[in-house]
Amino acid sequence: MSLSTPGGGVPVSLENGSMSKALAFFETHLSTLKQAVDAGRSRAFWSPYSEIPSGRIYGETANADGRAAFDAYLGNRFALETETSGDQLGEELSPYGMALGIRYDRPDIEALIARMQGALKGWRDAGADARTGVCLEILHRLNKRSFELAYATMHTTGQGFAMAFQAGGPHAQDRGLEAVSMAWQAMKNAAPAVAQWVKPQGKNPALAMEKHYTVVPQGISLVIACATFPTWNTYPGLFASLVTGNPVIVKPHPGSVLPVAISVQVAQQVLSEAGFDPCLVSMVPDSASDPVAQVLAQHPAIKLIDFTGSSEFGNWLERNCPQAQVFTEKAGVNTLIIDSIANLKAVVRNLAFSLSLYSGQMCTTPQNIFIPRDGIDTDEGHLSFDQVAQRLADGVSGFLAKPEVAVNVLGALQNPATVDRIDQCRALGRVVLDSVSGEHPEFPDARMRTPLMLAVDAADRDSYAQERFGPISFLIATDSTEQSMALAREVIGQRGAITLGVYSTSETVLEQAHELALDVKVALSCNLSGGVFVNQSAAFSDFHATGGNPAANACLTDSSFVSRRFVVVQNRRDVPPPAEE
Amino acid sequence: MSLSTPGGGVPVSLENGSMSKALAFFETHLSTLKQAVDAGRSRAFWSPYSEIPSGRIYGETANADGRAAFDAYLGNRFALETETSGDQLGEELSPYGMALGIRYDRPDIEALIARMQGALKGWRDAGADARTGVCLEILHRLNKRSFELAYATMHTTGQGFAMAFQAGGPHAQDRGLEAVSMAWQAMKNAAPAVAQWVKPQGKNPALAMEKHYTVVPQGISLVIACATFPTWNTYPGLFASLVTGNPVIVKPHPGSVLPVAISVQVAQQVLSEAGFDPCLVSMVPDSASDPVAQVLAQHPAIKLIDFTGSSEFGNWLERNCPQAQVFTEKAGVNTLIIDSIANLKAVVRNLAFSLSLYSGQMCTTPQNIFIPRDGIDTDEGHLSFDQVAQRLADGVSGFLAKPEVAVNVLGALQNPATVDRIDQCRALGRVVLDSVSGEHPEFPDARMRTPLMLAVDAADRDSYAQERFGPISFLIATDSTEQSMALAREVIGQRGAITLGVYSTSETVLEQAHELALDVKVALSCNLSGGVFVNQSAAFSDFHATGGNPAANACLTDSSFVSRRFVVVQNRRDVPPPAEE
Repeated sequence: MSLSTPGGGVPVSLENGSMSKALAFFETHLSTLKQAVDAGRSRAFWSPYSEIPSGRIYGETANADGRAAFDAYLGNRFALETETSGDQLGEELSPYGMALGIRYDRPDIEALIARMQGALKGWRDAGADARTGVCLEILHRLNKRSFELAYATMHTTGQGFAMAFQAGGPHAQDRGLEAVSMAWQAMKNAAPAVAQWVKPQGKNPALAMEKHYTVVPQGISLVIACATFPTWNTYPGLFASLVTGNPVIVKPHPGSVLPVAISVQVAQQVLSEAGFDPCLVSMVPDSASDPVAQVLAQHPAIKLIDFTGSSEFGNWLERNCPQAQVFTEKAGVNTLIIDSIANLKAVVRNLAFSLSLYSGQMCTTPQNIFIPRDGIDTDEGHLSFDQVAQRLADGVSGFLAKPEVAVNVLGALQNPATVDRIDQCRALGRVVLDSVSGEHPEFPDARMRTPLMLAVDAADRDSYAQERFGPISFLIATDSTEQSMALAREVIGQRGAITLGVYSTSETVLEQAHELALDVKVALSCNLSGGVFVNQSAAFSDFHATGGNPAANACLTDSSFVSRRFVVVQNRRDVPPPAEE
Repeated sequence: MSLSTPGGGVPVSLENGSMSKALAFFETHLSTLKQAVDAGRSRAFWSPYSEIPSGRIYGETANADGRAAFDAYLGNRFALETETSGDQLGEELSPYGMALGIRYDRPDIEALIARMQGALKGWRDAGADARTGVCLEILHRLNKRSFELAYATMHTTGQGFAMAFQAGGPHAQDRGLEAVSMAWQAMKNAAPAVAQWVKPQGKNPALAMEKHYTVVPQGISLVIACATFPTWNTYPGLFASLVTGNPVIVKPHPGSVLPVAISVQVAQQVLSEAGFDPCLVSMVPDSASDPVAQVLAQHPAIKLIDFTGSSEFGNWLERNCPQAQVFTEKAGVNTLIIDSIANLKAVVRNLAFSLSLYSGQMCTTPQNIFIPRDGIDTDEGHLSFDQVAQRLADGVSGFLAKPEVAVNVLGALQNPATVDRIDQCRALGRVVLDSVSGEHPEFPDARMRTPLMLAVDAADRDSYAQERFGPISFLIATDSTEQSMALAREVIGQRGAITLGVYSTSETVLEQAHELALDVKVALSCNLSGGVFVNQSAAFSDFHATGGNPAANACLTDSSFVSRRFVVVQNRRDVPPPAEE
């Protein structure tokens, strides 16, 4: 019997041409994989994909080539391998003003799922190393197309170019690689390929068995992507599922299809070259008026669901798809607690960037900033609540005063609803910094808004105790840091958060914040005042969300994020006792 | 700041007397832990707890002491630490005929949960090694009380004494230890205690951060125990939750409380000695007429649920407790496929034991036995379907002909409903072996029944395509082994299974069975004909259930069974660049 092996050993019966290709990819990228494993263990800084959009690194023509590739998509059909229904759709509008005009095939879902189920066995039986090789090659090729992905990300999400390059390209690739390396280890450690089990029986012959163990994928995986980070939030689930043997359907947000389509195209090319069905990674786009996510999520063939988006739909998925393992990242109320500051200028600079970056459209952007109403001690003396609020507001407006900074840091608002939300929220508190339209020198129709900062009282829970997505923050006057902590505990406990920041010169306060973070299970950043920002999360080092509060039921990327995607199936048989002499 | 460490290092601020005790336990049992880790990796045979109920191993008075301890419980109140409501309850009836008359305190659930939530922090902050030490000591002391647990298990579950000793004592302890060792590794590997993250910035000073990571439990864990294996099926969830920092409530089945109560008592003693709140492990008993499982399972404080029992309630738990991680083991239809047999006598002997053991009340007992209607080739020539059926029936009746074998192997039926089910099922097919009452020399009122074996046709899906819990099996006549495989695939796909066995002299058929096992995600046993039986599952080597078919949504004990019980919370801060010289 040729038994496939659990940990990536290759079954003899599959050592054919296509397997050689997949294993050649594995060999090519083995050093990268090992470094990724080491980085995930040490949690030290590491990345194989440069975040610098430089021609010296990516090739002198990389920017022009990426731009040309992006331009060539506009107004045309984007072809992917699928089982098509014959229909096409596409409604992407750049937040910078123009319609992309790209049309995508609408698949025949039943036909596509049947095809993917048919392809599962070959992918499963290929083993962990072959699948890992294919995934590493996909990531490698995605990296080469980072400029193209940057333009696609910029003109769907509204991110400024530099951020679109980093978050849509190398940083997303990092998170995909992190998932691959975590999953590869999990498969390797799940069980040995073969075990000899010998149980002594006193004077009688021992009981002896040979046992084989195989990693088996759960089934078809559905990744429901979000509009603002169509690759960064998609790659962890996509690659964790794919490398563990599960075919993957990505359902992009109707407003941010192109970065997903490019990613799926690259995956399909590598799968084909390695002799697998390219539809092992497929895209099922939909339209806002005819959504398909619910139907897909409840399809009996769907065994894994990754979702980034609203709490409403995330909670629905968690409750209504019992046939699947469901991983969600939802809304939350990210929080800063300001108790005292040792280096005010640096902190103001740091927070101005945090509050401005991508106009607050990050799932990690601070919203609630708790400050004692009696003010705080700083290296510039005691400042009143109003003085602190004004310093932060001035920090933001000063930072955005340079048009080229404003354009690149703010980017544009992905969703028109965010504009409306800013306008509605203005009445929720005293305006400390008003949100205004920005002007983009290149794209006059860009949907730009600067941050809105509102001063409210601790009692105004209706204002701040829920997510207000976008460039909206609350400066909340509290009786004391103790009350700030209590309110943060209450709001995060009820609504969740992905980030918590604290500023204090007191170790006691920092310890209290640490306890708070453990209790509500949120990542804590203390006294950030340099070039790292509370909304940044680095692959291989920072766990993104914990899975332990209402903002997310899973973490990118911990052990259970990958190990829930496969099971181990054993096959045992008696080993006859040796013949007596 | 004193940060607790994720992997079991001990925070300095907790190095007090109680921590010394817990860490002393850890040191005492470290060698056992390391052997458990090695066994789980190699999947070779290993157990630190002897399965032989011998005075030479457990002490000459161990049996008498255990019996005396059991007798002393009868008719009395069993006291555990709790927040009591003042009420008592208890309705245990031995399947061997007598009422146990034991009364247990009914807790005030809200008061108990509040107390357990209060105790969580100290247990969390103790760290992985201290918690592991406590758990290892609990298991060590449970092992010493294996005879007492055997009598308690026998007179609640109905298991024969030898099986009650093994399954209720050392084998259950093995599974608890397996969970502890898996979880300890998962915590150690989750993240380092501290990481230094240094990101180069070209000619500028590097960005540098120090990051601390802490393992944080999900919350209060609920383990809903079953009547037939109150310790074996309870210890994995109990110990996996406890060692990862979660306080545990065990809700025993009203008919099998005593083995759980003894286990909780031992856990409470060790927790107290180590300076922790004994209510970190608590028991909440209920009665059949006033069940509490649903209320507990939907309590917002309950974040983990382990359940063994009916599919109906298991499915309800999976769908209606979105606040918790839910691990279920439910009903299934275990299956044998007989294609051809190389050693008929040995196979008949093996299957006679499998079908008789504990009167088929194991979640691993075969129910459906597919045999081609044209018969099979054996080492005794070609046998017709009827001949094979008769040989199996004769095997069972011959094996049970000796009264002392019948008494010890069959045991008694835990639930009167099983008697009714046998009577109802008699009409579902042609009776090949009828079920009769057994007589127990010591307990004349014991509820004993021998196996019922029915011949049916492949077309009689209504008979065999669902679980018929108890000593009921179907010999199913199929057109061919190919049809046997197809029917097994269909039934297991729809209803689930924990075990699949195949008998064939053809490697091709064994390969097909392997493919089938991978597709429906069930553990496969090939050609068992010696002293290992398809219904046996050995800790550290056999995965019990896969989590991949409807019989169970989780596996005892794989990586995700333990890693879903905690999250990692990080705490990062800037490290200032070194001062310039």
